[in-house]
Amino acid sequence: MEIKVGIAKTNKYAVSDCGDSVETVERPRGGISIMLADGQGSGKAAKMTSSLVVNKAAQLIAEGARDGAVARAVHDYLYAMKDGKVSSTLTILSADYDAQILLFCRNSNCPVIVRGQFGIDVYEQEVAPIGVHKQMKPLLEQTILEPGTILVSYSDGVQAAGRKRGKVMDREHIIKIIEKHSPGDATFIAEFILEYALELDDYRPGDDMTVIVMGVTETETDHKIEKISVSFPGPS
Amino acid sequence: MEIKVGIAKTNKYAVSDCGDSVETVERPRGGISIMLADGQGSGKAAKMTSSLVVNKAAQLIAEGARDGAVARAVHDYLYAMKDGKVSSTLTILSADYDAQILLFCRNSNCPVIVRGQFGIDVYEQEVAPIGVHKQMKPLLEQTILEPGTILVSYSDGVQAAGRKRGKVMDREHIIKIIEKHSPGDATFIAEFILEYALELDDYRPGDDMTVIVMGVTETETDHKIEKISVSFPGPS
Repeated sequence: MEIKVGIAKTNKYAVSDCGDSVETVERPRGGISIMLADGQGSGKAAKMTSSLVVNKAAQLIAEGARDGAVARAVHDYLYAMKDGKVSSTLTILSADYDAQILLFCRNSNCPVIVRGQFGIDVYEQEVAPIGVHKQMKPLLEQTILEPGTILVSYSDGVQAAGRKRGKVMDREHIIKIIEKHSPGDATFIAEFILEYALELDDYRPGDDMTVIVMGVTETETDHKIEKISVSFPGPS
Repeated sequence: MEIKVGIAKTNKYAVSDCGDSVETVERPRGGISIMLADGQGSGKAAKMTSSLVVNKAAQLIAEGARDGAVARAVHDYLYAMKDGKVSSTLTILSADYDAQILLFCRNSNCPVIVRGQFGIDVYEQEVAPIGVHKQMKPLLEQTILEPGTILVSYSDGVQAAGRKRGKVMDREHIIKIIEKHSPGDATFIAEFILEYALELDDYRPGDDMTVIVMGVTETETDHKIEKISVSFPGPS
């Protein structure tokens, strides 16, 4: 078995800082997690908020905390630091080798789309963002960790793509992309969905956009080699 | 301009935990850093040590601390936590957009190889690892942030590849690989060097092996899109 992660991310048009932050982290008892946060607003302040959120989450996961506790602790941290005045979304996708599950944890208005053995499920129950309410509960779901599964999520900028131009993002189009590809295409799926959202916004994104994809494949090689590739845009 | 990061990593043969840890993190004032730590020993304990080191370093960089201060603070942290009894290497490669430099910070017996405009430089002055000496200074070097530059470093398992089999890693071979490729091939360079080291060890690595590469390219696209791909090995 192998986990393939694909992430594609871009800034709001004409804004130099991206208010979405994303990070991957290895789990101490085996596996990998992706964290995506969309900080309130856009630009520098939003970037600082979302960066604080994903870095705190990554640190806690690396220390062995379970995902639900991580979401709660990061909420409490943001609530304390910003006095309950700044919100952020937080989505965590985890391949947990210890529990042999795929786990996803939402505090976001955007869905987690799961392609499993028996088709596609969209998890989008309403849930509050973190940072602003005294009480907060993340929505946790899990599915079996088995080859063939794909998890997809994204930030608000993707969800709302085209809206300012009288167009609507067609969820079915995204689901078709996921259905048509295999878990090994995680990178391709992420870039394809981002491209679709950019197109809807005439390549002038109305908000920061991030797509995260996690796919579970059959093992491809004899040697257990971890590979990471990053392409990081230059200074603006 | 774009930064391309390539990382390739594998475990010591027949050991399920990798004692090397590596992480990338976005810099709050622009740019990206890669941190590589090789924890003392191998297996679970080494993994915990190196994971603690890179996660602390990532957290501090995300909070805006400068690289030299990060290395010192992480040393102090490891020294305090493990009572000066556990060592780790730490190498940080940074593309710092704010200062417009490439910065590299070594507390490792392995070199940083730099391909610049005027050829290859190998930085390998002796320096102590972190965690075990009361006094500790990282070796910091910098070069101009310009397209064409490639930074390469690796962990001890690569440096010592073949040694138990009476073979010697040929540094010139690695330098030729770097000379022959462009900064856009960061991923390829990392995988190629790891492959070379694995070959020297007859594909039964005598130690954990990690290669990290950072390349600076001309901007390739109009849209500032960040892309991350991870291929993460399954449970053993």
